[in-house]
Amino acid sequence: MPDTPKRTVFYVSDGTGITAETLGHSLLAQFPEFDYDEVRAPFIDAPEKASDLVERIERVKRRTGLRPIVFSTLVQPAVVAVLHRAEAHIVDLFGTFLGPLERELGMPSTHAVGRFHGILDNRSYQRRIEAINFALSHDDGIIQDGTLDDANIILIGVSRSGKTPTSLYLAMQYAVKAANYPLIPEDFERKALPAPLKLHRAKLFGLTIAPERLAQIRQERRPNSVYASLENCRKEVEEALALMRREGIPWIDSTTKSIEEIAAVIMQHLQKMQKYADL
Amino acid sequence: MPDTPKRTVFYVSDGTGITAETLGHSLLAQFPEFDYDEVRAPFIDAPEKASDLVERIERVKRRTGLRPIVFSTLVQPAVVAVLHRAEAHIVDLFGTFLGPLERELGMPSTHAVGRFHGILDNRSYQRRIEAINFALSHDDGIIQDGTLDDANIILIGVSRSGKTPTSLYLAMQYAVKAANYPLIPEDFERKALPAPLKLHRAKLFGLTIAPERLAQIRQERRPNSVYASLENCRKEVEEALALMRREGIPWIDSTTKSIEEIAAVIMQHLQKMQKYADL
Repeated sequence: MPDTPKRTVFYVSDGTGITAETLGHSLLAQFPEFDYDEVRAPFIDAPEKASDLVERIERVKRRTGLRPIVFSTLVQPAVVAVLHRAEAHIVDLFGTFLGPLERELGMPSTHAVGRFHGILDNRSYQRRIEAINFALSHDDGIIQDGTLDDANIILIGVSRSGKTPTSLYLAMQYAVKAANYPLIPEDFERKALPAPLKLHRAKLFGLTIAPERLAQIRQERRPNSVYASLENCRKEVEEALALMRREGIPWIDSTTKSIEEIAAVIMQHLQKMQKYADL
Repeated sequence: MPDTPKRTVFYVSDGTGITAETLGHSLLAQFPEFDYDEVRAPFIDAPEKASDLVERIERVKRRTGLRPIVFSTLVQPAVVAVLHRAEAHIVDLFGTFLGPLERELGMPSTHAVGRFHGILDNRSYQRRIEAINFALSHDDGIIQDGTLDDANIILIGVSRSGKTPTSLYLAMQYAVKAANYPLIPEDFERKALPAPLKLHRAKLFGLTIAPERLAQIRQERRPNSVYASLENCRKEVEEALALMRREGIPWIDSTTKSIEEIAAVIMQHLQKMQKYADL
């Protein structure tokens, strides 16, 4: 028995397609019942490529009997015109919003391809790469250049509380230099912050996590170890929280949050500290 | 002399604000002459928060004498209604596109907050975290679990050709497990692929880079070293290219490409190999 055909969703762009895909995921997430196949079509930067794509869209329509949905960030008028020949529901980002923005700003848009990561972005692009390298060389308590002076933020928390992915995401998305430093049982016994952190108290930000979830994550890494036992996780989380409270360090619970959400909270914190007015 | 006031751009969301910011950056990149200040306003998930924000927008307008631009991914009707009271140019993603999509799909949208990384996404979210951990434990020739069997792709290239940031981006954006393996002078002398790579030839993908750019990047790391000298960079890049050609390994030039662009090319390659029809 053949499957019922699904609708196909196309993400069409003259560049990488990241914006088209982000836009599409975001809109379609409002239709949880809607089940679909996905096709990425990046680098559609000439009318001939758009023609090939239109044929592909038509083929999918004939095969499934269903009108495809197209999320497009095409910007060149000649290429856009070809796409609009397709028998599909087209969500056209630039076609919809650029005209009104041109009128509001009182200036024409360039209709130039791939501006998103173009020349203008170069400085911020370099900053993102530097921030990624910083996160990697200051991961898990490593202090490669002997100092945390350059860190914008230092994430602390018990092992596997989400510090590393969050540091990397802060670097990639926001060009923020995030170091991360694990809190280990020795720190709790000493009842004091690890020495390298004492100098940078204002940059510290804590991640905590429900002990049950932590035990689950650690089990996958080291099954049946003391490290992964619920009892040990409970104790570590409790002591880390006590330390953060005692030292007045802001923290959030990562248990039910995505990296994106944790990072957005941290960005708000940085903005409040007035250190990131320029980000 | 005071600066001429700039327009202020707000990214408003009931979640993290990533989509609103992506949308705004993408549209504003079409106006390279337009200079602006940015304000992120995430987690606007109640009418009272929207009221505070509207006041903030009005204050900015009074201070600068210029109508702010607002990129919004608010989805709850009661919150959206409050925002629309602001004297601003509002680019409303959901308000614009959800209605037509509802009619096309023949189903109502949920108007639910924070769907982007909601429950539906959970499986793919776990896959992204696993892919990040994979990239970190298979970075720079490390083969932590003794095998590259689980890799979806293995990036090869000379030191500092962009392998690590690309691997991390593939993991975060696409949940692709990317290992990376540096090509070093010993490999060129041997005139053969490093042993661990021979078993996985079909997964190899090369990054090359202009020797001038490579020398520049390496200079920042190790000034005045042989490693960073233009002569040495030229030789390494040439030999790496010869090796990739000899072995029939696909490759791209990373010199003028962003991580996002390199990753999009790699995703196309993976799709062509039919291994990623499900991504």
